[in-house]
Amino acid sequence: MTAASDYVLNQTMLRIKDPEKSVAFYQDVLGMTLLDTYDFPDMTFCLYFMGYPQTNVPEDPSQRAEWVFSQTGLLELTHNYGTEAIADFSYHDGNQAPQGFGHIGLSVPDVQTACDRFDSLGVTYVKRPEEGKMKGLAFIKDPDGYWIEILSAKGLRDLILN
Amino acid sequence: MTAASDYVLNQTMLRIKDPEKSVAFYQDVLGMTLLDTYDFPDMTFCLYFMGYPQTNVPEDPSQRAEWVFSQTGLLELTHNYGTEAIADFSYHDGNQAPQGFGHIGLSVPDVQTACDRFDSLGVTYVKRPEEGKMKGLAFIKDPDGYWIEILSAKGLRDLILN
Repeated sequence: MTAASDYVLNQTMLRIKDPEKSVAFYQDVLGMTLLDTYDFPDMTFCLYFMGYPQTNVPEDPSQRAEWVFSQTGLLELTHNYGTEAIADFSYHDGNQAPQGFGHIGLSVPDVQTACDRFDSLGVTYVKRPEEGKMKGLAFIKDPDGYWIEILSAKGLRDLILN
Repeated sequence: MTAASDYVLNQTMLRIKDPEKSVAFYQDVLGMTLLDTYDFPDMTFCLYFMGYPQTNVPEDPSQRAEWVFSQTGLLELTHNYGTEAIADFSYHDGNQAPQGFGHIGLSVPDVQTACDRFDSLGVTYVKRPEEGKMKGLAFIKDPDGYWIEILSAKGLRDLILN
């Protein structure tokens, strides 16, 4: 039995209806990089790996794939072909019944500055930082309605310890 | 409008029925560390932050909280008080209808070695590495039934590029 402490939490996978909308949102609104795309036409789906790269992303496809699957904290967006064309198609965000997955959370330098940015970009909120019991943290929605917590390290520390 | 490229993908939040079972699983089976626990008795829930620490975890509670919310690739397990005592209570894994969240994924040095470990610990599989189209990668289940992909960087690279 080998120790498991050298494992890496590489990815969180969310299904998305429309990659054009989702890649644009995570890239242009949340500042992530599209690290690599893996298309599986036989199985009619395509994967978009996004994140905040901590080192240079290798250009060589083989090196890049190995690099992607070595990183921690990536988002894997799965697009099953054709869902974007079905008007009433939507995925389940996990926060209404039946519950399960709750959200992903981004740590930002300053929540209010981030929210000013989101306001200027027309982002939809679940909770603004000034609303609710948990002051200073926000929840926004991605194009599929998945919740994204917006927090700062110092803000959460103060919220939790006070 | 400030750039967002200094954001950090800090957390993925999953609701759990029974923290005793889930913390044991992520710690003892998957090798994660329980980094910190935040209890909110007024709101009757408790948060368990788990992950693979890349630096030393500060001992001081204030420094530790700030550290937790600065990291990338953590798992936030949310326990709503009392669910563990409800026999027929369960959360939704996102892979049956209504679909949404799919899985988290761990990058391990060697998938077969990891699976030998899981076998010795009685882990439940969705897919063993030798099953299905995607040879060499596995899916296991956590105590709530959430799917966890077990992959290796070289294995996925070869699967994708061949």
